[in-house]
Amino acid sequence: MDKKYVIGLDYGTLSGRAVLVDCSDGKVLVSAVKNYEHAVMDHSLPGGEKLSGADWALQYPQDYLDVLQEIVKKVVDSGVAAKEDIIGIGIDFTSCTMLPVDENNDPLCGQERFKSEPHAYVKLWKHHGGQPQADRISALLEKRGEINNIQYGGKISSELLLPKILQIVEEAPEVYEVADQILEAGDWLAQKMTGSRKRSGNLAGYKAMWTPQTGYPSKDFLKELSPMLENLAEDKLGSDIALAGEAAGYLTQEWADKLGLKAGIPVAAAIIDSHAGMPGSGVCRPDQMMMVVGTSSVMLALSEEGYAKNGVVSGVKHAILPDNFALESGLAAVGDMFGWFVDNAVPAEYAKAAEEEGLNLHAYLSKKAEKLVPGANGLVALDWWNGNKTPYVDGRLSGALVGCTLSTKPEEIYRALIEATAFGTRKILDLFTEAHADIRVIIASGGIAEKNPLLMQIYADVLNREIMVSDTDQTAALGSAIYASVAAGKEAGGYGTIGEAVSNMAHLKDLVYRPDEQRVQRYNKLYEVYCELVDLFDPQKSAVMSKLHQLRHS
Amino acid sequence: MDKKYVIGLDYGTLSGRAVLVDCSDGKVLVSAVKNYEHAVMDHSLPGGEKLSGADWALQYPQDYLDVLQEIVKKVVDSGVAAKEDIIGIGIDFTSCTMLPVDENNDPLCGQERFKSEPHAYVKLWKHHGGQPQADRISALLEKRGEINNIQYGGKISSELLLPKILQIVEEAPEVYEVADQILEAGDWLAQKMTGSRKRSGNLAGYKAMWTPQTGYPSKDFLKELSPMLENLAEDKLGSDIALAGEAAGYLTQEWADKLGLKAGIPVAAAIIDSHAGMPGSGVCRPDQMMMVVGTSSVMLALSEEGYAKNGVVSGVKHAILPDNFALESGLAAVGDMFGWFVDNAVPAEYAKAAEEEGLNLHAYLSKKAEKLVPGANGLVALDWWNGNKTPYVDGRLSGALVGCTLSTKPEEIYRALIEATAFGTRKILDLFTEAHADIRVIIASGGIAEKNPLLMQIYADVLNREIMVSDTDQTAALGSAIYASVAAGKEAGGYGTIGEAVSNMAHLKDLVYRPDEQRVQRYNKLYEVYCELVDLFDPQKSAVMSKLHQLRHS
Repeated sequence: MDKKYVIGLDYGTLSGRAVLVDCSDGKVLVSAVKNYEHAVMDHSLPGGEKLSGADWALQYPQDYLDVLQEIVKKVVDSGVAAKEDIIGIGIDFTSCTMLPVDENNDPLCGQERFKSEPHAYVKLWKHHGGQPQADRISALLEKRGEINNIQYGGKISSELLLPKILQIVEEAPEVYEVADQILEAGDWLAQKMTGSRKRSGNLAGYKAMWTPQTGYPSKDFLKELSPMLENLAEDKLGSDIALAGEAAGYLTQEWADKLGLKAGIPVAAAIIDSHAGMPGSGVCRPDQMMMVVGTSSVMLALSEEGYAKNGVVSGVKHAILPDNFALESGLAAVGDMFGWFVDNAVPAEYAKAAEEEGLNLHAYLSKKAEKLVPGANGLVALDWWNGNKTPYVDGRLSGALVGCTLSTKPEEIYRALIEATAFGTRKILDLFTEAHADIRVIIASGGIAEKNPLLMQIYADVLNREIMVSDTDQTAALGSAIYASVAAGKEAGGYGTIGEAVSNMAHLKDLVYRPDEQRVQRYNKLYEVYCELVDLFDPQKSAVMSKLHQLRHS
Repeated sequence: MDKKYVIGLDYGTLSGRAVLVDCSDGKVLVSAVKNYEHAVMDHSLPGGEKLSGADWALQYPQDYLDVLQEIVKKVVDSGVAAKEDIIGIGIDFTSCTMLPVDENNDPLCGQERFKSEPHAYVKLWKHHGGQPQADRISALLEKRGEINNIQYGGKISSELLLPKILQIVEEAPEVYEVADQILEAGDWLAQKMTGSRKRSGNLAGYKAMWTPQTGYPSKDFLKELSPMLENLAEDKLGSDIALAGEAAGYLTQEWADKLGLKAGIPVAAAIIDSHAGMPGSGVCRPDQMMMVVGTSSVMLALSEEGYAKNGVVSGVKHAILPDNFALESGLAAVGDMFGWFVDNAVPAEYAKAAEEEGLNLHAYLSKKAEKLVPGANGLVALDWWNGNKTPYVDGRLSGALVGCTLSTKPEEIYRALIEATAFGTRKILDLFTEAHADIRVIIASGGIAEKNPLLMQIYADVLNREIMVSDTDQTAALGSAIYASVAAGKEAGGYGTIGEAVSNMAHLKDLVYRPDEQRVQRYNKLYEVYCELVDLFDPQKSAVMSKLHQLRHS
């Protein structure tokens, strides 16, 4: 039989990427990237209309289609694979990134009457304008005694679907009324290509409070939230759900022509971008944890039971890998925080010395920091430079550095910031363990995992686990390709199960970071201090950070 | 009558200064400074013997005499004043800076057998080797229910006399046994010049747990501390006490010859260096507070009642100014902390821009920071880079910065550090008020008060008080001169009272920092947050900082 290929699509915050992957070994043969023309709209709309207030993060849906056509054409036109041998497409997408559409599945922002209406555009995952709505939803669920139900998880983030919809209802009710459907951009893209109306169980389970048992939130609750929302579920959300590795639909002739592909090949149900990294980095067993460390970080691990509290959510069973829930959490700032430090807090003397040694500042600081003994800097930091996800789910929380003396050196602070993210990760690992995950090995990926051995060794010592590193820097796109190979199925030249696909298509580098017993012991003590500090700033107990947040914005 | 003059001696940590002052108007006519040859010995003794451990801060007593001869000769030889018209000498000295001496009042470190014995040398005020001893003294007083007595003040600092003596007893008992007297270096210097054995009530009251009513700590307590200490008070301390402005004795012929002065002129009782700044900066009324802002800061204000807790001590009545107690506290790091920041945490980009504008980094940061609205940086810091004096009296406490985000700028942190010292000062002002001081105006002095108008304005806004600035940058030396003029007395051409001397000799600049109502309001809110943060890190409630201190030293 001829070699077979799949296409993985990875839609990030600023660009879309396509990879053409060999089904047999997961090798990425061709890759193409294109930025969204309108990027993130946080100050004005495409027509120039100014957005008032600071919490907008919108996108322009046509950008996704333009990118789709260009990047897929590029990998197909490379000639590496014959059109007939490309057997499926997979998609991962940022989430919850959502938009209202009409009965033809066309975005409302395309209608003349809504061109100046921000609520008719795509709300990107990090659109936080619905924070007051999220707070009200939390309060109502609290009142109803439902906030700790598995689909709500103790606190409603403004990044979920419902707060974004409620913001539309309250600020632009006509958009809500006119909308035929409101859906995730990942679902919309899959539906566009296939003509299907199926939605992804991954997206619905993690972002739309949907479970297979209970469906979407109840009429009763929605009505209490806003009378207009009573029939939200049946009117504007979809209940035809495809789980991970299942096809959302099959490529239409129209889109096959546009993309240069064969009509009828499956398009796998869209999946959250970071989730696609789980199979993409080779994680498919309950003793493994995926850890993506980049500007922020994401952790995912399997669990037999659902769990949802302290910022850890497990969505629904089968949403990422078969037969399991997948526990998810992460840190809101990792590389971003180190970047902040290097840009804002490293003295000229260091910059000069680094230049003389031909190192960038990260490398120079790492070189100095790696000589330090854990805890000997006497510092501990809270890694909340971009708010806190776990355990408090509170964007008003902020970063802290404790233990400064007149002899504190920049490399000591740099190391303390790295350690803070390691401790934040350990906190998540502790919660995963509480949720019955039994993690023995960590598989890391992401820009920082590849570039910063000091960080990786600190993580190994703090987490007291071996850390391996994924062989690809495109774990999400590869994960999408893996889903495509499963949606295509064994007979077409793909795979029968995700596990089988992962075993064949995902690979690890020949590199292991191993914990050192002595450092593990010292970090155990420092982690105890970190936990005490986390506890001191529990927003239920101390108003220091929320008051600072208020002062900053008053 | 001819003009009369006095000499003020100011013995700091690294150098001694002499000023020749006109009695009539306080004008400093000549000034001379000389560094101590052996500076601070923290690694080795003069003979090269290494000191083990990190907590040594010793000095070499002969240095004080060498400096004395050179600086006094210099101001006398200037010819500005005839020898006959110089009517008195005043001394201020760091404290508790202490040494053991033999029956001839010669330092034990001068004896051949003790040359290699660190405990035979001068222990400088900031010698912290007696911390374990201080902790044990606190514990014993606690046990005896005496820790809150006025002379103990709730906690024993390792900088006081008794912990330093107990360290000698425990680590070098033969030094203790051989010592005829153990005394403050300021007293020793006055005694050397005069042959008298009087001690200063200022030094005894603030540093040796002495009160006029109870004398030194009881035999009973001292015996329980260590059997060797039972007769400490009568054997090795002196009970002949001179209060502020009184003469410790009169210049001997020997020293008159050495210094080129007239024999028989009074040498005023020594006084703590920062205390001399009180009259020196013009503070002599109960509605005034002295504030010296330099590398660290000191606050002093008058009170009718004694007070001793939370790191505020009032010593004994008449110890600085007549008929009053003087409340004392201060911050352990002010300018030192800003210096740390500029050296360690300001990026190259800022250094370059500052250079282009011809500004030093402090000026450049101040220029950017002065445009910020109070609280808008969303930051609050604890100014404990060098431990905390008030309210916790705990050197293990350390600095903290809370409220960092990815958009936090260096000038915002710089301002937050200045604000932290202002809040720390307000905390002290609050305690002074609790101790019945009624402060309406602040008289500032010190290097930073002169050089940093941004800091002065922030202090005015945070403290909600007018701040005036002393006209001299030598307030301590001028204060010593003022005491000399009072010890000399009216008939000799000096003054009958300290108040009279201050009115004539101390002056203010024509400059007032006034609080701005709007900023006062915003700072009231931020101060509330600062207080909550201070409370979070109360060492009785949270072990975070003490554990960090332990890890740093383990």
